[in-house]
Amino acid sequence: MSMSGPELRADLEKLYAGIRRRHLTPLWTQRDDLMPFAPRPAAVPHLWRWADLLPLAEAAGELVPVGRGGERRAIALANPGLAGKPYATPTLWAAIQYLGAREEAPEHRHSQNAFRFVIDGEGVWTVVNGDPVKMAKGDLLLTPGWHFHGHHNTGATPMAWLDGLDIPFAHAMDTAFFEFGADRVTDRSTPATSRSERLWAYPGLRPLSLPRNPPSSPLAAYRWENTDRALAAQLDLESEGQPGVVEPGHAAVRCTNPATGKDVMPTIRIEFHRLRPGAATALRREVGSSVWQVFGGDGEIEVGPHRWNVGAGDLVVVPSWVPWRILAHSSLDLFRFGDAPIFESLHQHRTFVTEESQP
Amino acid sequence: MSMSGPELRADLEKLYAGIRRRHLTPLWTQRDDLMPFAPRPAAVPHLWRWADLLPLAEAAGELVPVGRGGERRAIALANPGLAGKPYATPTLWAAIQYLGAREEAPEHRHSQNAFRFVIDGEGVWTVVNGDPVKMAKGDLLLTPGWHFHGHHNTGATPMAWLDGLDIPFAHAMDTAFFEFGADRVTDRSTPATSRSERLWAYPGLRPLSLPRNPPSSPLAAYRWENTDRALAAQLDLESEGQPGVVEPGHAAVRCTNPATGKDVMPTIRIEFHRLRPGAATALRREVGSSVWQVFGGDGEIEVGPHRWNVGAGDLVVVPSWVPWRILAHSSLDLFRFGDAPIFESLHQHRTFVTEESQP
Amino acid sequence: MSMSGPELRADLEKLYAGIRRRHLTPLWTQRDDLMPFAPRPAAVPHLWRWADLLPLAEAAGELVPVGRGGERRAIALANPGLAGKPYATPTLWAAIQYLGAREEAPEHRHSQNAFRFVIDGEGVWTVVNGDPVKMAKGDLLLTPGWHFHGHHNTGATPMAWLDGLDIPFAHAMDTAFFEFGADRVTDRSTPATSRSERLWAYPGLRPLSLPRNPPSSPLAAYRWENTDRALAAQLDLESEGQPGVVEPGHAAVRCTNPATGKDVMPTIRIEFHRLRPGAATALRREVGSSVWQVFGGDGEIEVGPHRWNVGAGDLVVVPSWVPWRILAHSSLDLFRFGDAPIFESLHQHRTFVTEESQP
Amino acid sequence: MSMSGPELRADLEKLYAGIRRRHLTPLWTQRDDLMPFAPRPAAVPHLWRWADLLPLAEAAGELVPVGRGGERRAIALANPGLAGKPYATPTLWAAIQYLGAREEAPEHRHSQNAFRFVIDGEGVWTVVNGDPVKMAKGDLLLTPGWHFHGHHNTGATPMAWLDGLDIPFAHAMDTAFFEFGADRVTDRSTPATSRSERLWAYPGLRPLSLPRNPPSSPLAAYRWENTDRALAAQLDLESEGQPGVVEPGHAAVRCTNPATGKDVMPTIRIEFHRLRPGAATALRREVGSSVWQVFGGDGEIEVGPHRWNVGAGDLVVVPSWVPWRILAHSSLDLFRFGDAPIFESLHQHRTFVTEESQP
Repeated sequence: MSMSGPELRADLEKLYAGIRRRHLTPLWTQRDDLMPFAPRPAAVPHLWRWADLLPLAEAAGELVPVGRGGERRAIALANPGLAGKPYATPTLWAAIQYLGAREEAPEHRHSQNAFRFVIDGEGVWTVVNGDPVKMAKGDLLLTPGWHFHGHHNTGATPMAWLDGLDIPFAHAMDTAFFEFGADRVTDRSTPATSRSERLWAYPGLRPLSLPRNPPSSPLAAYRWENTDRALAAQLDLESEGQPGVVEPGHAAVRCTNPATGKDVMPTIRIEFHRLRPGAATALRREVGSSVWQVFGGDGEIEVGPHRWNVGAGDLVVVPSWVPWRILAHSSLDLFRFGDAPIFESLHQHRTFVTEESQP
Repeated sequence: MSMSGPELRADLEKLYAGIRRRHLTPLWTQRDDLMPFAPRPAAVPHLWRWADLLPLAEAAGELVPVGRGGERRAIALANPGLAGKPYATPTLWAAIQYLGAREEAPEHRHSQNAFRFVIDGEGVWTVVNGDPVKMAKGDLLLTPGWHFHGHHNTGATPMAWLDGLDIPFAHAMDTAFFEFGADRVTDRSTPATSRSERLWAYPGLRPLSLPRNPPSSPLAAYRWENTDRALAAQLDLESEGQPGVVEPGHAAVRCTNPATGKDVMPTIRIEFHRLRPGAATALRREVGSSVWQVFGGDGEIEVGPHRWNVGAGDLVVVPSWVPWRILAHSSLDLFRFGDAPIFESLHQHRTFVTEESQP
Repeated sequence: MSMSGPELRADLEKLYAGIRRRHLTPLWTQRDDLMPFAPRPAAVPHLWRWADLLPLAEAAGELVPVGRGGERRAIALANPGLAGKPYATPTLWAAIQYLGAREEAPEHRHSQNAFRFVIDGEGVWTVVNGDPVKMAKGDLLLTPGWHFHGHHNTGATPMAWLDGLDIPFAHAMDTAFFEFGADRVTDRSTPATSRSERLWAYPGLRPLSLPRNPPSSPLAAYRWENTDRALAAQLDLESEGQPGVVEPGHAAVRCTNPATGKDVMPTIRIEFHRLRPGAATALRREVGSSVWQVFGGDGEIEVGPHRWNVGAGDLVVVPSWVPWRILAHSSLDLFRFGDAPIFESLHQHRTFVTEESQP
Repeated sequence: MSMSGPELRADLEKLYAGIRRRHLTPLWTQRDDLMPFAPRPAAVPHLWRWADLLPLAEAAGELVPVGRGGERRAIALANPGLAGKPYATPTLWAAIQYLGAREEAPEHRHSQNAFRFVIDGEGVWTVVNGDPVKMAKGDLLLTPGWHFHGHHNTGATPMAWLDGLDIPFAHAMDTAFFEFGADRVTDRSTPATSRSERLWAYPGLRPLSLPRNPPSSPLAAYRWENTDRALAAQLDLESEGQPGVVEPGHAAVRCTNPATGKDVMPTIRIEFHRLRPGAATALRREVGSSVWQVFGGDGEIEVGPHRWNVGAGDLVVVPSWVPWRILAHSSLDLFRFGDAPIFESLHQHRTFVTEESQP
């Protein structure tokens, strides 16, 4: 390597041209970007206000029909860092879905895992593999991968809710399959309780006749009434000096597959959190991304350099390894979904909790 | 081997004497007993009537104090085939426990897994690792291995219930540890709902703060109200033409560890069954043994050559691989516990179901 | 309870008589025996000398034919504490099996898990599910539950080896099934390497075409050459200041199911140990029982109150929770089998290691 | 919705503008792209010839030093469908790495899982967590996530090999961590056998002293000698009419974590395949992507519409769900790595095998 500068430069240029021509790339020029010291997500923290989302969904309700092909009247959060892709994070899709009075979304199925969380309203039934599941305020409804599902609004008022899926993950990984189903939902009955709940919604009991280890939860609905009681109990126990809360003033539950105790679906974790007025969580960093939706109350969500005042319906995205903290003004209820099961399954999970819990 | 008969006999006798002297035993003389073609249990099918048990327990209540050393006023089923040992089966202990008005059983802990099932009555709280758990009719209460526990009757009437443990298994396997605890129960409060239930008794929800994979259920009580609803729902679904029952007219649930979906304790399986009037189960053989207690209604239990009419409180033991069947006269509710988790863990489980379901 | 003494005594006698008559037993009179503070095994530590066993086996070889019905010429260790039962421990069977020149043991299968360990000699092939497996000095050969197997001695000299099974466990648990197979072994070829080894005996490689999670090891033979190298390497690494040994001067390997990394069979753990001359293990107590056989060298085995000088072929039984320690005079190689997988599966395992490692 | 066309169009435009302004995206306009009927990978099948790669690596050896910052002289396959990113597939990185005589690549560690496969040559040791591991022709060497590693060429001739990592997956998922280590490798010794192999490279044996369930294989090297014997044995067994091969004329082994039987690393599957002359695999589609490298022999690889003649060193990428088949002219050995463990862990795996196995 006793070449002079210009010689070397010419040879290097020739080398790089040859590398490019052969569909190759040198590592040494981009190691730092490819293999950062810590996650450097392209996705950015972002806040979407429900007060902005709902009117757009309502306008779409006026202008855009629901039907075969488009399939759903859903408007997705498009993370400003993700180059216009309709992704909340690199793994998660989050959208407001809107169904007008008497409207119906046709049945289909896909390998992507999906859920709906109802920030407000009622009147819609989602029919999952033929089982009609009522959707009402505070409820979490599941549609695990490859389950047929359609929705119909039986009421006189429109309804909007949050849809969450692992579409970006499936798209990036090339794992997605899709199939059309019936044009109208296959069971038009409107029971208060789905068959899935009648079989599975009892603490610690399982039907003897059903499969032992389903990969996704066989329980189609997690009702707000139970979630509310579970969160309240943790705070009550704290008041009594008993364990149960995550940290002072902070109650939380995870929704699980009752047949296995694992996450509700292999790629998606779902949690509900409640903070007492004035409480704050510790500052945390976690591998993997999350979407939070405020369900009730007022507070602040701090994510990286941002600190947002939030209220019911507001949605905040926390990308991987960006520090976050929540502070409650009033009693504050939050819904969270994230991709942690992916990284726990693959031994890529890390969490870092700072001790300085007060801002 | 060209010896004459008497010579051979003498040499054989000498050989067997030498074998015995060295603490040895030949296989070839007892292969058939040691390694039968199918399980040939020493335990026999047997029926104990509640009407016989309860008066004996009441008499013991008059004559035998409860306290440190004896620890519990429990009278155990002693399978007639098991040579006087106080074992219902080779793995399972079943006893009626009796606590008089205002009486108290001191705290202790042991590595054996235990539960209580309440056939009738109320007024007793069992305090498990400091958590007072109300005992009432139809409830299942757990005391997993190495949890401190004591009982106290807060009421003016005595109470009797079924105790189940894996004492015979632990004794045969030499795995048993035991420790005395407080002489009086460590929390005398009498809440309707234990702290364990306040944390865990919600379908599909788990507290975020608690350990992920406890080997035994963290839920101390399985309430009859839930069990009843779960069984009723399966029969209702059957009436609607929907899946859920085990076989026609036969509903059943398994009690599980809500954190893992597995059996409530590593050695003990617990189930509740309900049969419609006139329904019968298929004839089944299973590796492992069970104890059944009728909770309500009338019917027949067929076990091997026996066929017993049974009513509330009656207890029947089914040894390994003995065929059994249940027939309901009225609507019939049954509680069952067994050792199947042992054999499933060790890949020794087998089940054989005959098709001829009517006697 | 204001009765006078004699009155009370009479009433108690009547109570106990009633209890007995109904096939019942009070707990309070025997709690201490049933639920000891720590395991109090009936099995006792015991030593069987190979020099005593082998002549008895040879004599049996002269006097007792091998054939259908008796099945095997095996003489079992009968623990002096176990009331004449042919059991080494409550879970484990250990026997010397002997096959004369040109003799053959017919094929059969049973649900009990079995292995053979060859203390000396060669010339026998064991045919496992049709696969002929050569048996030679230092080798471990597996016959997992429900695999057909027979043995034939192709040589001109008799051969003796150690048989280990979970017969006592299966017998106590009533899980045993048995079936006769062919009267002569189904493949009379005598390859040096079984088909099982040709598929599986490569470090970290598995055939793509075979089942993912077999409950027992698909590898029929663990050859001494590999075991020897593995033990030697650990001691070499220790000499180089590198980790690998269990404790100073003590190397050990576990035989595992290469498809899962778990124990070779669901109920049986198998290990090889090597101690440097002068080395001693720490004093340990463990839940569960083991049988040790010295493979080569001289030393002492301490078990509870006993301390025995041992040499090649000698067998020592260690009951549950009895403290044990091994001291090497020369370089000392040992084979061990035990029931630990049962107790680990059921969360009953405990180990206690004392720090005082020198006697 | 009784608006006229132009009115509607104007309103829709306003709606879409509002949606965009709020960082939102409608689903209905892109459902088909986001949720295809079957995976529609952006990555394309592609062939890189070793004869093209090696001269570029050699030229880089002349022109580009190896050192801190760039870290490695590695030239990565950049799938033509992936917009210039240095990714072989959406999850997998594959590169030729080149180290000149006496050169050294400094130590570092990263959360990405890595391996090296040696198509030819020797003389380099990779030092993994301080353990020097010889690299030679046909060997697979592992560097699981967060293990420090550096390489040094002790010989007088340069060496090139294949590097495989899950860089694209970690980058897309934002899970990557990285740390510099020592500037020179921390152990300069050049043993033929690494300490890792001395502890773990025995079929079915594990050191008693080491952790039970490491997420990645503790065995640093899978030697060609073993792989070759394992593949040869399967074909020999086939000739003898015994099971073992995947399909006629097609032998294959998977490299596994000997402590668990699972894949070598949580995100990467590694297999070796051997085809007899004239043999062909069935046409298969699989969820997930793979990279194949021919190790020896000549044949054809069919991927989607392509059919390439390939020889030693040639690399072919198979994107998700694209059908592939291999045909051997001579005896043909292939190395394959893929991302299947990710999709099996997450229950996203699907395989479709067509019966028509001849082209």
